[in-house]
Amino acid sequence: MAVMAENSRETQPHVVIIGGGFGGLHAAQSLGSKAVRVTLVDRRNHHLFQPLLYQVATATLSPGDVAEPLRQIVRRHRNVRTLLAEVTAIDLEGKTITLAEGDQLQYDYLILAAGGRHAYFGHDAWEPLAPGLKTLEDALEIRRRILSAFERAERLCLEARDSGEQVPGDVIKALLTFAIIGGGPTGIELAGALTEIAQHTLAGEFQGIDPRQARIIVLEGESRVLPAMPAKLSHKAETALKRLGVEVRTHSLVTDVTEDGISVGEEFIPVKTVFWAAGVAAAPLARTLGVPLDRAGRVPVEPDLTLAGHPEVYVIGDLSTESKPTGPLPGLAAVAMQEGRAAAENLLRSEQGIARLRFRYRDRGAMAIIGRGSAVAAFPHGVQIAGPVAWLAWLFIHLYMLIGFENRVLVLMQWAWSYLTWNRGARLITETSISEAIEASARARGRPRGRTSA
Amino acid sequence: MAVMAENSRETQPHVVIIGGGFGGLHAAQSLGSKAVRVTLVDRRNHHLFQPLLYQVATATLSPGDVAEPLRQIVRRHRNVRTLLAEVTAIDLEGKTITLAEGDQLQYDYLILAAGGRHAYFGHDAWEPLAPGLKTLEDALEIRRRILSAFERAERLCLEARDSGEQVPGDVIKALLTFAIIGGGPTGIELAGALTEIAQHTLAGEFQGIDPRQARIIVLEGESRVLPAMPAKLSHKAETALKRLGVEVRTHSLVTDVTEDGISVGEEFIPVKTVFWAAGVAAAPLARTLGVPLDRAGRVPVEPDLTLAGHPEVYVIGDLSTESKPTGPLPGLAAVAMQEGRAAAENLLRSEQGIARLRFRYRDRGAMAIIGRGSAVAAFPHGVQIAGPVAWLAWLFIHLYMLIGFENRVLVLMQWAWSYLTWNRGARLITETSISEAIEASARARGRPRGRTSA
Repeated sequence: MAVMAENSRETQPHVVIIGGGFGGLHAAQSLGSKAVRVTLVDRRNHHLFQPLLYQVATATLSPGDVAEPLRQIVRRHRNVRTLLAEVTAIDLEGKTITLAEGDQLQYDYLILAAGGRHAYFGHDAWEPLAPGLKTLEDALEIRRRILSAFERAERLCLEARDSGEQVPGDVIKALLTFAIIGGGPTGIELAGALTEIAQHTLAGEFQGIDPRQARIIVLEGESRVLPAMPAKLSHKAETALKRLGVEVRTHSLVTDVTEDGISVGEEFIPVKTVFWAAGVAAAPLARTLGVPLDRAGRVPVEPDLTLAGHPEVYVIGDLSTESKPTGPLPGLAAVAMQEGRAAAENLLRSEQGIARLRFRYRDRGAMAIIGRGSAVAAFPHGVQIAGPVAWLAWLFIHLYMLIGFENRVLVLMQWAWSYLTWNRGARLITETSISEAIEASARARGRPRGRTSA
Repeated sequence: MAVMAENSRETQPHVVIIGGGFGGLHAAQSLGSKAVRVTLVDRRNHHLFQPLLYQVATATLSPGDVAEPLRQIVRRHRNVRTLLAEVTAIDLEGKTITLAEGDQLQYDYLILAAGGRHAYFGHDAWEPLAPGLKTLEDALEIRRRILSAFERAERLCLEARDSGEQVPGDVIKALLTFAIIGGGPTGIELAGALTEIAQHTLAGEFQGIDPRQARIIVLEGESRVLPAMPAKLSHKAETALKRLGVEVRTHSLVTDVTEDGISVGEEFIPVKTVFWAAGVAAAPLARTLGVPLDRAGRVPVEPDLTLAGHPEVYVIGDLSTESKPTGPLPGLAAVAMQEGRAAAENLLRSEQGIARLRFRYRDRGAMAIIGRGSAVAAFPHGVQIAGPVAWLAWLFIHLYMLIGFENRVLVLMQWAWSYLTWNRGARLITETSISEAIEASARARGRPRGRTSA
């Protein structure tokens, strides 16, 4: 019986899934142990639980807590294989995808779930100055910048004091200012966590600077933060942020980002550390399809999630957009997961010669965490909550959604630990970043190599 | 009273400690809240618990579990300040140290604890081909290489099979071979953990290759592994390694390392992944002292740990060597910690005008872990144990020595999890390493950009 199954496998249709995020992974799992051969292709060897990524960036969690090897997640499905590779092009006519070094892979069905990345709206030069938060590497870079800013300010302060010079107050102030461009959930979460770091975690560990004097600014172009949520919750979130000491600026479009600060119209804000949480665009892979894309580079799909004229190609998650009177679906994990399962189901229906179903998103709500004991959540049927109850709901829902029992236990423990002690277990500056930080620090002081006596 | 203490602080002697490893940190803690001003300088913002670093390299633990911010460790001592900086030179006459970007710092006392780094015995070209394990970055690089080797082998296998070509058996075999140069504790621990990864963690997750066929080789130049331990334990360790399937080669001096393999005399072993656990030399900073160093670049010190002719300078840990009839002390954490405390005590004695004490190392023993349920330990008075009891002792001693209560709990949990499930929580390939791995994989196949159909 096992031999028969092996033999018949060669003739089974080959499904290629590009992307192991929420959409691709749920499609792969839904096709697991079905009569298809599945190849799951991703540049990374791990599925990333993006909703908790900001906690890696703000030193509460370690990378291993929010990521799980794809190979391990799908290991029990013998018909699913994992390929660590970057896809560079898709040939719809030839039913072929091209991998980074030129190899090609043929498919009978394609599920395209390559996701999104930061969009700088034509200002790509801002990217190194204001990194965004999409990958584990991004999170470690943000963590490094946050911690290094305090270290650099401290060092400037101590050196000036040791040598009897005037402490360069303006530079210190710019080093202790953090600007977050974008007031969506990621921006809010980063701002809230940054406040805790400055007010509690680092307080009392420095002798030159006072980390509690850090200034944290959230800049949102729209009229309110969390613009995708009900207005009442936006205002509750804004109030909660202000209570934490965060400066919330709405109607604030950033017009320039430089090494020394950001411009908002005529105003210039001196700030050394800027993060980008403002825009998401579809992965550039979509462009290789040769079909018209929407403004954000997303692929318009039919109501059954297939590409018009290509019933063998599904596009899901942040990469796709369904033209609806209500506008595109939000870029949420829940949307991608439901689309992944629906694409898998439609694919199997096609194989069986049954009509495909129209995809219908079941709204499970949306939420954002602000700080300890503080969150906002909008559930279906107009249920809106804020405060400690929303916060607890956020914690439990995210723990529940996390893949891997070990991850759940470790994350729960680290949350409990952070909550009780205000401490953060992953406060590490890694990579060969120190000499760079030092150079930048020397530059910031705007004076030649000096001499400090103690 | 507090004001008086503040005022008198300016006149207190300034102690500069270079290095926040076991030696420097214990010196700083011993000087905490004493009548001296202490500046602890390190390139990293964290103290690293090196004995568990191999577990980060082999995906059991996350970087945050084995590292703790220096600033946090010394936070309760108001007289200890932390400086994130790289020291490039020491001027003994001017009592000054120079930092990477040219700034200088004056000291009244100096405790030099800059530690060691890998020594390639004149073969520095081997370093990129055979990385060692000293820093968190090293550990992540080793983890990446281990996991990528399996991924590359799998991909070659699947692509050849899909396109109906012959699977390149020799290349696959070289990719699934891992050579560890050096049979000391680090080499043994890496080899044991690698076996577990291949035999259990990854087994059953690949469809082209069988990870259990991985070949793991330990090469030791001396006549036995763990040459610093009693011969009986060396032989027990060797037997335990062989039982795990590790190839142990003693009397094996590696004469060349290339991208395709290593040479041991006349013999060439095709191997794509090589790690260096063979030699440690003192940090190059020692050379700037302008005093004669020993063969490994270490600084000879007086019996009271001071530098000859410079009673204000202490050199401790892996950077120092005391000329003794019994030879230099081993490069153990215990030695560095005891020396750190002794240097601090002698420094305070000098301040008080009391004679300094001769340093005497209290041997607490040495141990090495081989695999689950298997370790060897040599305690004072000839007590030697091996097997499960030694393993349990290893676990508890290392947990106990780990700094930070949270780290202890997290590490214990992850050990329990790994033990029960054979799973490893930190199996992540990070950094922009994939395209590099892919290129290498294309090169390994030795053919131009091919075409694979599925």
